[in-house]
Formats: sequence, C-alpha cells, structure tokens
Amino acid sequence: MTTVGTTVGFVGLGNMGGPMAANLAKAGYTVKVFDLVPALIAGVKGATGTSSAADAATDVDVFISMLPAGRHVDGLYLGENGVASLLKKNALVIDCSTIDPATARKVASGLAAKGITMLDAPVSGGTAGAQNGTLTFIVGGSVEGLERGRPIFQAMGANIYHAGDSGAGQIAKVCNNMLLAVLMAGTAEALALGVKNGLDPKALSEIMQKSSGGNWTLNVYNPWPGVQETSAASRGYSGGFLTDLMTKDLGLAMETAMQSQSSIPMGSLARNLFTSHATLNAAGRLDFSSIQWLFAPELKR
Amino acid sequence: MTTVGTTVGFVGLGNMGGPMAANLAKAGYTVKVFDLVPALIAGVKGATGTSSAADAATDVDVFISMLPAGRHVDGLYLGENGVASLLKKNALVIDCSTIDPATARKVASGLAAKGITMLDAPVSGGTAGAQNGTLTFIVGGSVEGLERGRPIFQAMGANIYHAGDSGAGQIAKVCNNMLLAVLMAGTAEALALGVKNGLDPKALSEIMQKSSGGNWTLNVYNPWPGVQETSAASRGYSGGFLTDLMTKDLGLAMETAMQSQSSIPMGSLARNLFTSHATLNAAGRLDFSSIQWLFAPELKR
Amino acid sequence: MTTVGTTVGFVGLGNMGGPMAANLAKAGYTVKVFDLVPALIAGVKGATGTSSAADAATDVDVFISMLPAGRHVDGLYLGENGVASLLKKNALVIDCSTIDPATARKVASGLAAKGITMLDAPVSGGTAGAQNGTLTFIVGGSVEGLERGRPIFQAMGANIYHAGDSGAGQIAKVCNNMLLAVLMAGTAEALALGVKNGLDPKALSEIMQKSSGGNWTLNVYNPWPGVQETSAASRGYSGGFLTDLMTKDLGLAMETAMQSQSSIPMGSLARNLFTSHATLNAAGRLDFSSIQWLFAPELKR
Amino acid sequence: MTTVGTTVGFVGLGNMGGPMAANLAKAGYTVKVFDLVPALIAGVKGATGTSSAADAATDVDVFISMLPAGRHVDGLYLGENGVASLLKKNALVIDCSTIDPATARKVASGLAAKGITMLDAPVSGGTAGAQNGTLTFIVGGSVEGLERGRPIFQAMGANIYHAGDSGAGQIAKVCNNMLLAVLMAGTAEALALGVKNGLDPKALSEIMQKSSGGNWTLNVYNPWPGVQETSAASRGYSGGFLTDLMTKDLGLAMETAMQSQSSIPMGSLARNLFTSHATLNAAGRLDFSSIQWLFAPELKR
Repeated sequence: MTTVGTTVGFVGLGNMGGPMAANLAKAGYTVKVFDLVPALIAGVKGATGTSSAADAATDVDVFISMLPAGRHVDGLYLGENGVASLLKKNALVIDCSTIDPATARKVASGLAAKGITMLDAPVSGGTAGAQNGTLTFIVGGSVEGLERGRPIFQAMGANIYHAGDSGAGQIAKVCNNMLLAVLMAGTAEALALGVKNGLDPKALSEIMQKSSGGNWTLNVYNPWPGVQETSAASRGYSGGFLTDLMTKDLGLAMETAMQSQSSIPMGSLARNLFTSHATLNAAGRLDFSSIQWLFAPELKR
Repeated sequence: MTTVGTTVGFVGLGNMGGPMAANLAKAGYTVKVFDLVPALIAGVKGATGTSSAADAATDVDVFISMLPAGRHVDGLYLGENGVASLLKKNALVIDCSTIDPATARKVASGLAAKGITMLDAPVSGGTAGAQNGTLTFIVGGSVEGLERGRPIFQAMGANIYHAGDSGAGQIAKVCNNMLLAVLMAGTAEALALGVKNGLDPKALSEIMQKSSGGNWTLNVYNPWPGVQETSAASRGYSGGFLTDLMTKDLGLAMETAMQSQSSIPMGSLARNLFTSHATLNAAGRLDFSSIQWLFAPELKR
Repeated sequence: MTTVGTTVGFVGLGNMGGPMAANLAKAGYTVKVFDLVPALIAGVKGATGTSSAADAATDVDVFISMLPAGRHVDGLYLGENGVASLLKKNALVIDCSTIDPATARKVASGLAAKGITMLDAPVSGGTAGAQNGTLTFIVGGSVEGLERGRPIFQAMGANIYHAGDSGAGQIAKVCNNMLLAVLMAGTAEALALGVKNGLDPKALSEIMQKSSGGNWTLNVYNPWPGVQETSAASRGYSGGFLTDLMTKDLGLAMETAMQSQSSIPMGSLARNLFTSHATLNAAGRLDFSSIQWLFAPELKR
Repeated sequence: MTTVGTTVGFVGLGNMGGPMAANLAKAGYTVKVFDLVPALIAGVKGATGTSSAADAATDVDVFISMLPAGRHVDGLYLGENGVASLLKKNALVIDCSTIDPATARKVASGLAAKGITMLDAPVSGGTAGAQNGTLTFIVGGSVEGLERGRPIFQAMGANIYHAGDSGAGQIAKVCNNMLLAVLMAGTAEALALGVKNGLDPKALSEIMQKSSGGNWTLNVYNPWPGVQETSAASRGYSGGFLTDLMTKDLGLAMETAMQSQSSIPMGSLARNLFTSHATLNAAGRLDFSSIQWLFAPELKR
C-alpha cells in the first residue's frame, strides 16, 4: 500500500481522531473526514471535509473509525444506512475505538460477509501520542490485514502489536487497562502507607521502582504530587487520562469478565475504588492518578 | 571501616543468613557465627563457629542478625541475657530480618540507650541473591550509620537504598512487597482473563509488558507457565519466593496498616487471595506466582 | 378482576413457570400456556396448550411471561412478530422474569405506547415457593396495575410488595439478591473463622443469629453442613438456589451499578467469590451456600 | 452463689463498666470498684471505692474487669504487681473486655496455674444495654465456671451464651462483629444502589427486610436517614456504636485471621471501607452506620 494515491476515510474527529487524521494527511495520504460536530471537521489540517459518514466511506481504500462506544461502531457500519454496503470490496477497515470485544467481533463478521477485511485496533498513548504520532496500536484481525494496514499505523503511531484474531485487540486492551488500574491503585495505596509511617514519597518511590514493586506508573506516572516533575500529579492532576475514561475501560473489563465467567477480584475492586473516587472527590474529569486522594485525603486541598 | 581486622558477629544462618555470612568471610572479614541449629554453624565457609549468641556478640565491630520474626529479634537484643549489654559501645548493629517496623524501632531505641547504633536493613533478592552477593538492602537508620556499614553491605549485596530513620527500612520493604503482591495477583488475573477470551498468553504478556500494564512480574517473573523459560512458572512453581513467605509479608503490611489507621484495600484483597490460594491449592510451599492457579484452575494438574 | 371468566396467557414453563401456571388453573382461571419445549406444555395441569406465543397472547385478559433473560423478554414482546400487537388493549401484562431493569423499562414503555399496562414482577421463593403458591412478588409499575393484578399474584404467591414505577421491581430484586450474596459469603466466612479457631459451628451460629450478626441465611439457610437439618448444606448442597443463578443475579447487579455509576465493592467481591467458587470447586450446579467450601476446603470431600 | 454476702471486685469503670458495676450493687452484691480515673470511682452508685486494683481484688468472691485492650488485661492480671497473686483461690474471674483471643487464653492459663477459674465474657448491647442491664454475654471457659457466674451475668444482662473453652467468647464476638460490619456495609451499598436507580429507601428497606436480604441492621439499625425513627441515622449518626470501635473490632478479626491463616475477604474489605470512611469523612466518632455516606455522598451535608 503506497501512500501516494491511497485514499483514507476517517470518521470520529475528537481529541484522538482529529490529530490521527491530520497525521495521515501529513504523511501524504488523501484523507476524507467526517464528524457529527462540524467544527471538528474543519479542524483537521490537510484533510477534506465531507458531509456524511457515507460520503467519507465512498471510494476509499482505507476506512478508519474512532468512536466512543460499541453502539456507535455497530451503528456506523451495520445500522440503517450503515457504511458496510458503501465500502469497496477491497477496502481495509480499521476501527481504533476502544469498545467491547463482542461488538468488535460482530462488526468484523458483518463486514467479512461482504468480503471486507476489518481490524480492531484500539490505541494507547493518549492525546499527546495522537498528536505526536507515537501511539501504540493493539491489533486484532488477520496477519494479512495487519500487514496491509502497517503503513497506515506507522503514520499515526510508534508501536504495533498483533494480539490475535478479530476482537483480540479489544481484549488485550481491556486486559492491559484493567492491569493499569490495579497498578495505579496499588501504587497509590503503597505510597500512602509509607508516607503515613514517616517515609519520604520520593525515597520510597525510588526504592520500589528499582525493586520488585517496579511498574509503569512508578516509571512515568507517579501519583504523588512533586515526586515526578512531569507527572499529572505535579500539575494538580489536570489533563492526562481521565478518571471517567478509566472507569469506562474498567466497565468493559467487567463485561468481558461476566461474559466469560471470569473472576477478576483485583480489577473489580479497582473499578469500585475509581468509581468511589469519582463520586466522593468529584474527580471524574481529573487524571486517574488522582486516586491517590482516596488514600491520602490530606493531599486534597 | 577497613576489611582487615574488622570482626563481624552473625546470628541466624538459614537459607539467607548462611550465604551472607560466608560472603563476608570471603571478602576478608573475621566472622563469628551462631545459630540454634548446630549443623548450620558448621556450614558457613570461612567463618568461626561460636557456642552462643552471646559469644558471637562479644568483641565484634559489627553485629548482624537474620531472624524469622520480630519476637526473635526483640529477644536476641533486649530479652533476658540479650546481647545489648554485651556489645561494644562503638559496635554497629545491622538487623537484616524482615520484621514489623514497631519492633525494629523498639530495638533500635533500646540499643541507642546504650550508645549503640543500629540499622534495620531488610533484604530482597532471595536465596540466589544471598549466594551471589547481589542482594538489595533497604536501610533504615542514620545516614552516618549507613555509611559506616556500606562496605559490609557491599560485601553481601549490589544495591543499597536509604529509606529514612529507624524502622524505615522495614516500612519500605513492607510497602514494596505489598505492592509486589498486588502486581502479581493483578497480572495473573489479567492473563487469565485474556486467555479465557482466546488470547495467547505470550502475545498478551508482551503487549502488556511494553504498554502501561508493564511491571516487574511481567519483566522477570511471568506467572503463566511457558511464557518465560526461566520463571518459576515454567518449572512447576518450585523454589523462588514461597506463597507462605508472601503471606507473612502481607501480614506485616496488615499490621502496619492497622497501627497507622491506613486503608489498604488492594493489599488486603491480595492477602486474602494468597491465603485462599495456599489453603485451596495446598500451595504454601510453592512459588507465589502459582497464584495463577486461582484464576486459571485448568493449569493445575 | 374475578377469577371466573378471566383468561390468562402464560409463556415460559420451566421449573418456576410451570407450577405457577398450574396454580392459576387450580384457582379457577382459564389458562393458555406455551413454551418452546413441547413437553413442558403438556406438563401444566389444568391448562390448555397452545402452539405459539402468539396463540397464548390472543384474546387473554392477563398475559404472563417467565423467561431467562432480558433479550428473551424483549424479543417476546417487541421483536419481530412480538405479541405487543396481538394483545388486547385492556390486557394486563405481568413479566415475572428476573432481568435487567433497562429492558424491563423498555418493554413497559413499548407496551404503554399501545395502551397496554405492564408490571415487572420478579419473584423470590424458589421452586418450592412456585409449587406451593408461596412466592414473593416484587412489583414495579403503577399502583392501579398492581391492584388489578393482585388476585393473580395471590393465586401464585403469599407476599406482594410494591417497589415503585416500571423497572423498580427488577431493581429491588437486584438489590436484594446482591445483599443476599453478601450475607451468605459473609456468614460462611465468619463461620469458617470461628471453626478454625476452635468453635463449634452450631454454637457460633446460634450466638450470631441472636446477636447483631443475625441474618436470613443464619435463620433458614445455614451454609455449614449439619447445623440445620433442612438446609441445603445438610444434603450435600443439592437443589436450592444454584451458584450459577446467584452469579447471574450478581451480573445484573454489576450492570445496574455500571449504568448508574454506583460503587458496590461488597457486591463486586461477592460476585468474584461466587465465580471463583463455581470454577475452582465445579460448584455451578450446587446450591449457592456451598460457597462455604471456599473458606473451609476441608468440608469438600 | 447467693447474692447476700457475695463480694465483687470491679476494675474499669468507663461508659460500660460503670453502669455494670452499679447494676451489681443494685442487685444486692457488695461491690468494690477501682479505675485509674478517680472521678469514675465516685460515680458508681452503691459501690465502695478503693485506691488500687490490688485493693479491689483482695478478699473478693468474684473479680470483674472491663478494659480497652489485651495489654491492659494482661498487665492487670499477670504484670508486675498483677492481681493474680492477690486473688482468693476459689475466686471467679470474669473479664468482660473485648480483646484478642490469644491474650484471653494466656491470662486464663496464667490464672489456672494458680487454681483460679477465669471466664472471658465480652458483651454486646452498648451503653444502653449496660445501663438497663440488658447486655448479651458471650462466654468462653468451663461450663462449671459459667454456672457459678450465671447470677452475676443475670444482674448485668439479659442473654448469656456459652461459646466454648477459654478464649471462645472473644472469638465468637470477633466473628459476630466482623459479620455485623459486613451486614452494615452490604446493606448500605444495596440501599444506595436502589436509591440511585429511583427506589424509595423505605420501600426498598421493607422489601429486603422481609425477603432473603433480611438482617439485623435492617431490623433495628437502618443506615439510611429517616427510614427508622429511632436509628442513629435519623439523628445525624450521633451516639451508638462508633466507627472507631468497629474499626478496632475489625482489627481483632484481622489478627485472629492472620494467626489462624484464615481467608476473610469480605471482612477485610469491610475493614478498609470503615477505615476509609473514618478518614475521608472524619467519621471516627460517628455511629458506624454512617458508612452509608461512602455510598451516598449526597447525604453528607
């Protein structure tokens, strides 16, 4: 798939989708974009706005969606006037939304019935990653489909992982983000325990980071204010990955666990801690590392 | 503190203490050792056996203990016929046991009353680290005391961290190991959820390791059999860090939390999971990563 | 609503629905029944079999459904060829299924659009209650609807509670059964703790039952074998309320909590304990009080 | 043991001990009392004050203690100048304190070595029960000892249960209060879930109370304000059983579980919820039913 002459349709131009589409245009692709909010369409540098999802899906080689939840994805592709019947047979569909695995499989299967290859490719890396083109893609679908899409992914991100068949991208992301919630809550709890017993949060953080307690949150996302200059905690927990988004992802983990009769006690407790935190501390729109407040209320001014 | 002419007393010669004392002898120290089990005394290469803890504490520049629990440490130093009154005033005392912080502080304070400096210096790194001299020491006590002890630590280990004042070494270790338990249980749970939904454990492990789910257990201690050749999981969970020892450390975390009125929901749940696992799966003497069985019973033959 | 001349349609004739329909016939109602399994139709004493749900819904004054899950209820009433358009305008619809509140509200609203009154009326009391006509109905919908249905409920049960508007019956049942799961798990855990510390389970049960630990499970459903002659525990946990059904109800609680952004830590932990128990102890088809095994594995032969 | 001529020593005259001693005097016993706070001694109607615990223990037929924690009980009986050596051989000792079972057994064993019979007899029923003489006693020790003490218990309370041998009274109380914490947290959580989904707290309470969710807290201690006129919730959670006391009792449960390698996930979670509640909501000195705030923050003005 060469860049020159390849046309990409892109639907869903929020904080993530907008910059992703712009990066595709920047890389030389012809990009047709659509969003229900007209202002967002105008904001994508280098792309051509369209007046409907149907327009954006017509005559494109690659079609990408970045939407809030499974029902939107289902509706876009398979709903009344869905784009499934408008896409070219040899088009490659990439859904970058983070949605429930069951819907991802259902849509892939619906498209496959029309001969169209679909990848589920949820991302991690946040809005900064979207802007800088350093996202991580966790891809479900065929190896052949992933190889066809590789240049597209490379224009928007830095890491591409193949998780398995259709839906596997969503499952891997669900597992990863559930684990992330556990890491963050566990780290916040351990830091609070140490500080309450007289330790310096910076000293304790450094010890655990280099010992068997080491984890991603201690490396780049320390939840205690002032320990890491660049962390959300050091700027009042503004921006970053919102508590509400983590709660959403933990909801997907619960659904996945219920459908597969899986026991996920740590993830379930984490969900309740983040939900309590959102309610008790009005923290839904703060970075999720503000869960530190739940264990060290004195940090909350 | 030069090695030549420095005499070290060492009490507690189990799987950890024995090799640690031998490494001191190997480094050139004159080492006097004691244990209640005579066979262990004979096993320490290069050291001189003594007939009592009192003997081992007499006329030494440094005195080291490596015992199972707080009550043993309390008894050794401050009990009837405790060594506190036998040690030289300028002796340096290093307790490498993993015990409750309250006892560590009590003993340090009792020794300080006699003018003796004590460090609490629990280790991590396991029996392999003890044998190879690559242990990590997490040290509580004065900076001056730590500097005096540095050559001694270097003879037995590779990393030395200063956690804070007396007791801080124990607290930092308690926090770290509680977090480790959370990482391991959370990782095992995430892997099981993925596998139950069709993912390959190796692919999922790699994705999470490189993403925001990354943590020490995924790096070097993967709990799913076959994912990492050298992990305990790949040799039937034999050896390593026993479930019973993790349960003991989580008990210290509970005590520390109760004494400081701290809420540690994730650590508490982890304690119950490991305790249930020990009982339900008769896994007390298996490596603690066997907690994987709790989430994927099919792995248990 | 007099019994004589009142015709009732009944769809869903399993362990619960079958005896409920039979009790209506016994009370003098003219009852038309249907189930996808023909053998079940024949088994309802005193009722007239029909060949389709549509048949059972035609020309009846009251229409009752007792189905496994929300999607079945949705399909029966509002799906393609749904009975909504076949029912008489002044018919009273009673759905006795235990389903998610959102679906209950959706169906009630769909029927209301056609002028038909619907009640959601999940039951408790088990198969024994269904046979003996001693069920408890927890009813959502209008007071006027409930009064119209009262004679019908009385023919099948002993207690009728009004929980609130449409869907409220389902919500109240979800709350109650989540609490029941917490009571059972908590009681099993307390009994195991006492027995492990030397207490007699019967003595401890009696003390707690009469003290502030008193709860329904200690009164009539003691989970420790031998404490109550008539409890499921005393007959090998056979029959009763299956672990799989409790897990299903806890799933509804999770969904309800996620939709309302509620924190339910105790209920979530209970869900994971019952799910683990089902898997680890192959206990899905045993009475849910067998959760006792999770805390006292020695009881499991 | 006749009342006339029987002399009772009583140490520990707080909110519970004071009224208990007064009830003994009222019943006709000769009562000698002591407390470290002189004002409390003067406040016990009908009793004779003494100047030391030793005085109160001398020449008495029955000796009763009501102290805050295990170390106080240990010190009173077996410490330096402990009363163990002052008590008459045929004296009956009753410790009504709520303490850890291990200390209860240790003290009973120390007294037995001197031929003295001891009962551990923690109470429930609160300050109102102490004043009105309606306490419940949960007794550990010999049946013969309990029979000797029966008239004494009857003068102070309404219910007497025999839990088993020495320490069993403490264990049974620990189990009961852990279960109570689970009932209260579970009930508060279920009520909040229902209310958040539109139910009336009174209607839901009544339904659950009469159904399988029925438990002591719904009967007499409803945590939702306004549902029960006489509950602590309806008077701003003042008085009653303080959150701090529940946290203390849950700490005893944790210790008992750790010493017996027991898994108590529900009780552990409850401890963390009550500890979080005490910290986040500054609720340590409020009634423990204020845990309702954790699930329905809107109730907190």
